[in-house]
Amino acid sequence: MSTRLFSFVGGAAGAWRVLSTTAVKGEPLPAVSRLSVVADTPPAAGSGWVLRGVTSNERYVTRAEHDQLSAVSPPLGRPDAACAALIPIRKSAAWWLLSQDERREILADRSQHISVGQKYLPAIARRLHHCRDLDVASPFDFLTWFEFAPEHRQLFDDLAGALRATAEWNFVEREVDIRLQRE
Amino acid sequence: MSTRLFSFVGGAAGAWRVLSTTAVKGEPLPAVSRLSVVADTPPAAGSGWVLRGVTSNERYVTRAEHDQLSAVSPPLGRPDAACAALIPIRKSAAWWLLSQDERREILADRSQHISVGQKYLPAIARRLHHCRDLDVASPFDFLTWFEFAPEHRQLFDDLAGALRATAEWNFVEREVDIRLQRE
Repeated sequence: MSTRLFSFVGGAAGAWRVLSTTAVKGEPLPAVSRLSVVADTPPAAGSGWVLRGVTSNERYVTRAEHDQLSAVSPPLGRPDAACAALIPIRKSAAWWLLSQDERREILADRSQHISVGQKYLPAIARRLHHCRDLDVASPFDFLTWFEFAPEHRQLFDDLAGALRATAEWNFVEREVDIRLQRE
Repeated sequence: MSTRLFSFVGGAAGAWRVLSTTAVKGEPLPAVSRLSVVADTPPAAGSGWVLRGVTSNERYVTRAEHDQLSAVSPPLGRPDAACAALIPIRKSAAWWLLSQDERREILADRSQHISVGQKYLPAIARRLHHCRDLDVASPFDFLTWFEFAPEHRQLFDDLAGALRATAEWNFVEREVDIRLQRE
């Protein structure tokens, strides 16, 4: 097992209570009542689901951007960050056929993904997991996990809305938005 | 299983006869006599080994470089390409902590990886497999598979030597060079 592998287990148990599961684009995920985030690969919990992804090296940000982001990026697990969101996304085949400079141009220059994200720091903590290059084919390319305090719920909606309005999001063919509360 | 997953099975059977197995840097791989390349995940063959990797989207080349390379890149499986090489590589943690622009600068600008590779086309066919983001931790980050005709053996040695002399190769901490012949 990769030490960078995390599993998101949706079912009837887990530290996170599911508040809503919204199919933003494409096929929905079965609704579950609880979610746990674990650093290995457990069996699927009954009628639920398991989504898996690995943290990995950065794909797009420059050193200057990395340093700016790092300086204000909070860790996961802050005591007051009782809210979370899990957003699994699959991008289209057309996206993956683009070359590196074309993807960077759409993601950074046209969509401002990096600078938009930075505006929401340090309120919103984020960890990106990659699923596209797992051994076992995944229905998603990325799982992004966000944590924030209850008073930043609207801020998180703003962030999600801003990204969904970009040119980059034209390449998203499946997106589910799962909101959670720690209990 | 991912449809982009390939396994290199070293053991006593397979269409490729192993001519040599050289530990260029770091720990060697156990010597085997034959190798097969399969599009799934078979069990390890007795005392041999299985290395797995997925083909994936490009990480560094620009559209212009992609188009130049594509125009002269031969397919695998050419009848006269009876020679092959499998070169598993692991890069250092320091490499993976670099940002995208820093890795591109070392790989392309300082090491000319892309333009050096292009000089050996169309003689040498190549398929790159990624192992770093598999579910199951891999001892390597990349498996590169090369095919060429017997008269291009020296050319392939030149290519391998040119890449090993670059700044990029300072970040390689394990490399094995397996030469094969189709039988």
